[in-house]
Amino acid sequence: MTDTPKTMNGAESVVRSLHKGGVDVCFANPGTSEMQFVDALDRTKLMHCVLGLFEGVVTGAADGYARMAGKPAVTLLHLAPGFANAAANLHNARKGRVPVLNLVGDHALRHQQYDAPLSADVEAACAPFSDWVKSGTDAGSFAADAMQALAVTKGRPGRVASLIAPADIGWDEGGQMAGAIAPDGPAPLDEDALSAAVAALESGQRTLIIAGNSVLEDTSALAQLRGIADKTGADLLAPTSNRRIERGQGRAALAKIPYPINMALETLAPYARAILIETVPPVAFFAYPGRPSLLLPENCDTVTLCSVDGDGPATIAALADRLGAAPAKVQDRLVPARPQGGAITLKNIGAALANALPEDAIIIDEAVSSGGDTYPAGDAARPNSWLSLTGGSIGIGIPLSAGAAIACPDRPVITIQADGSAMYTIQGLWTQAREGSNVTTIILANRAYEILKGELHNVGAQPGPDALSMLNLDRPHLDFVAMAKGMGVPGRRVEDVAELMQAIEDAAKEPGPYLIEAML
Amino acid sequence: MTDTPKTMNGAESVVRSLHKGGVDVCFANPGTSEMQFVDALDRTKLMHCVLGLFEGVVTGAADGYARMAGKPAVTLLHLAPGFANAAANLHNARKGRVPVLNLVGDHALRHQQYDAPLSADVEAACAPFSDWVKSGTDAGSFAADAMQALAVTKGRPGRVASLIAPADIGWDEGGQMAGAIAPDGPAPLDEDALSAAVAALESGQRTLIIAGNSVLEDTSALAQLRGIADKTGADLLAPTSNRRIERGQGRAALAKIPYPINMALETLAPYARAILIETVPPVAFFAYPGRPSLLLPENCDTVTLCSVDGDGPATIAALADRLGAAPAKVQDRLVPARPQGGAITLKNIGAALANALPEDAIIIDEAVSSGGDTYPAGDAARPNSWLSLTGGSIGIGIPLSAGAAIACPDRPVITIQADGSAMYTIQGLWTQAREGSNVTTIILANRAYEILKGELHNVGAQPGPDALSMLNLDRPHLDFVAMAKGMGVPGRRVEDVAELMQAIEDAAKEPGPYLIEAML
Repeated sequence: MTDTPKTMNGAESVVRSLHKGGVDVCFANPGTSEMQFVDALDRTKLMHCVLGLFEGVVTGAADGYARMAGKPAVTLLHLAPGFANAAANLHNARKGRVPVLNLVGDHALRHQQYDAPLSADVEAACAPFSDWVKSGTDAGSFAADAMQALAVTKGRPGRVASLIAPADIGWDEGGQMAGAIAPDGPAPLDEDALSAAVAALESGQRTLIIAGNSVLEDTSALAQLRGIADKTGADLLAPTSNRRIERGQGRAALAKIPYPINMALETLAPYARAILIETVPPVAFFAYPGRPSLLLPENCDTVTLCSVDGDGPATIAALADRLGAAPAKVQDRLVPARPQGGAITLKNIGAALANALPEDAIIIDEAVSSGGDTYPAGDAARPNSWLSLTGGSIGIGIPLSAGAAIACPDRPVITIQADGSAMYTIQGLWTQAREGSNVTTIILANRAYEILKGELHNVGAQPGPDALSMLNLDRPHLDFVAMAKGMGVPGRRVEDVAELMQAIEDAAKEPGPYLIEAML
Repeated sequence: MTDTPKTMNGAESVVRSLHKGGVDVCFANPGTSEMQFVDALDRTKLMHCVLGLFEGVVTGAADGYARMAGKPAVTLLHLAPGFANAAANLHNARKGRVPVLNLVGDHALRHQQYDAPLSADVEAACAPFSDWVKSGTDAGSFAADAMQALAVTKGRPGRVASLIAPADIGWDEGGQMAGAIAPDGPAPLDEDALSAAVAALESGQRTLIIAGNSVLEDTSALAQLRGIADKTGADLLAPTSNRRIERGQGRAALAKIPYPINMALETLAPYARAILIETVPPVAFFAYPGRPSLLLPENCDTVTLCSVDGDGPATIAALADRLGAAPAKVQDRLVPARPQGGAITLKNIGAALANALPEDAIIIDEAVSSGGDTYPAGDAARPNSWLSLTGGSIGIGIPLSAGAAIACPDRPVITIQADGSAMYTIQGLWTQAREGSNVTTIILANRAYEILKGELHNVGAQPGPDALSMLNLDRPHLDFVAMAKGMGVPGRRVEDVAELMQAIEDAAKEPGPYLIEAML
């Protein structure tokens, strides 16, 4: 079935070429204009096809897959509205610099001149949420376009590419296999910046190193960075939002720049010098009356030692070499005492997670307003990969976990999921059930868009009952266990913290998905 | 509370001006950048605020509201990803020529230069799904921009306008009240086209009149059109997709151009002449190999008697006058025999609906592949308003019904809802429960993207098990009753057609939402 045939249509040439280029998973929510891809995927059997019941599930899963597999999956999306449904999680992937390759079906070229019901400008719809957009023009060059898109996604630091696929170039014969194109390598080491960074670290002034992206995925680089900090007295922070951090016992830990504006400003206020590695100067999530947009102090002398398209671990090795700094030996961290029981609160949930998160777990963090209390658990827990909401567009957790589980079927996935955010892409539970993935979703049920209550205060409002009603989800109550059951995912509600820990431990050991509704 | 204050911020000036212009409902899924609107809505108490747990619910509800209220609601959306989540149902509203006014929050103007996590080009995101886009520039002119947007939405034939609201112009003082701007009136009657239409109708050749938009909402115009057909021998059809048709006993009935390409071509093949009233030449939903895009025969002589921005009912009156045609007296139509029991099938479901749909109901039709069997029920049933999926982007039914119920709290709303499509915006059930709306959702559970199986054949594929697996929703089964319960909507599963009718009749009589999962 999988021998390359002498003649094939455009869709088949794309599927076969991408597969030769290493793409073997397709996340899909196809429609009529993608039927030739469904057919080609069916006939070639080259890719594992994962169906999402909503496009935001498809792209969130592609993001989670790529973060853990270290390579892109392909998505199959349907016209401009299908792309729009997919866009919020592509926004997150793009801000996280995660490689995702979209095949976006469009009407046949000859049909595009008519105002058919599903017609809209697909290129224009893709542009704000893609780093690269191209529309295929004919069956013969279609696979070459796809391979170009693949190279774009894999270029450092990871990009979102959208190839638009008019239906007729998929079904026309004349498809030609296309070979792999080498992606852009990392930007070279900047020797001047390296000297400036060394000078900053030896200046005697209070200096902060902020390191992001691939540094956080590399335990050796993290240990080397900690060694630099130990030797020079510099402090270390990670950005607020990160695609993946290797955390847990035995690994050097970095705190994050806090999300709340006042905490962020306070955290960064002491620094006269800042060194950036694979990240940009930190900026507030939102603007607020009377607060600055840029978070570092105005007079902070900032060196971009390694831009986001550079090689952070190699840069850190060069910096350590210049400073004569050895990698730090990471000490065991104290695990908070295991809570013995009682109501689940923001005070005990961190300790509960630190004790209950299993070895080698993938943690999907969409805790939002509870994040300040749950995030520290990742350092005290057993070694884990910690994946966060990157672009601020809520509704990533359930899909991200579905994709991560497909990349790493032998690792338990634990999703720490805010309730309000869960509702944006709740359909992803069905994909977890369909794929039999070992994902344990912990719903942090505070029955509110809790984070927005703080934001209302930040703009100077004194919220009355109508405003609060727009931010509360308690009328009616959401019953996540019932919703999960409706999508084939078993689950239970827990109100006791000891019971929560037991439920996490049990669910992670069992194959297949499970949902725990933790009442806060 | 609602007296206009002497000074106010930009957000309050917008809320107060729009309210004076007749807008009294706000469908919202706000985020941080919209907090000043939440605050202004809270303080003024001028609008009924309806929360959706996902933006596609918000815009689908705004569409349903406008179709029934005959005027726009305002939506409150959050930045580019929030708009993207909203876009698919805005696409449907736009294709249905339904007025919707979006307020899309953006970062404060000074914050837009930084690459904050939620930054993206909001204007570019809005453009493919809006007829009009503008970004507000300062608090003083913000309300004037909003009133211009309102006028755009109300201009014939109904438009989608998106006003981008940078956070700071919302919270800045200096808001100024702005008055209503008269929307564009309808295009004037085209006397030449009128003469051409009369000539066509008197030509003796087989002539088809296709009438859309406001004609279908006007029972007098429908009777007059039927009178013209009776007098001249012309046939009448409605477009495939329509925002609202007044149907049922006592009203002139128009069949629709069928969706399946071969049926559509066959239906239109006989006509040498076509007259278009408030519609465009019919075009295939999708292109298929070997089939044309335009559905009327190539040699069909087509007259656009009234363009989509014209006044169809007035045009029909003028045409009837020229022809000396009186309004038809509509005969009672046969109601199919009430099914006595047995499995629910596509053969008996039309009869079941024709008998069970209550008087004066609003029917929301997202039946998709079952539509050919359910649609005819609308003519045999008691008088009803029938609202369809207009832009082909599935996931409209549950939100559309939530909005229609808010526009018409005293009418029962019945949603005929395909299962696959329901999953795109299932969160809308929660909004129905929150608002206590009398919506009865009938899930037509065939556990497949059934319509795509036909489409796979239409592109020449012979689907194997992998392809069918991408189109089947049976692994695992979806349990809609459980999902509805999870969102506060009671329901039941029915497998017998008599039980289905009883369940519809019972649910429509009870206040509040209900869900019936009809197993096909």
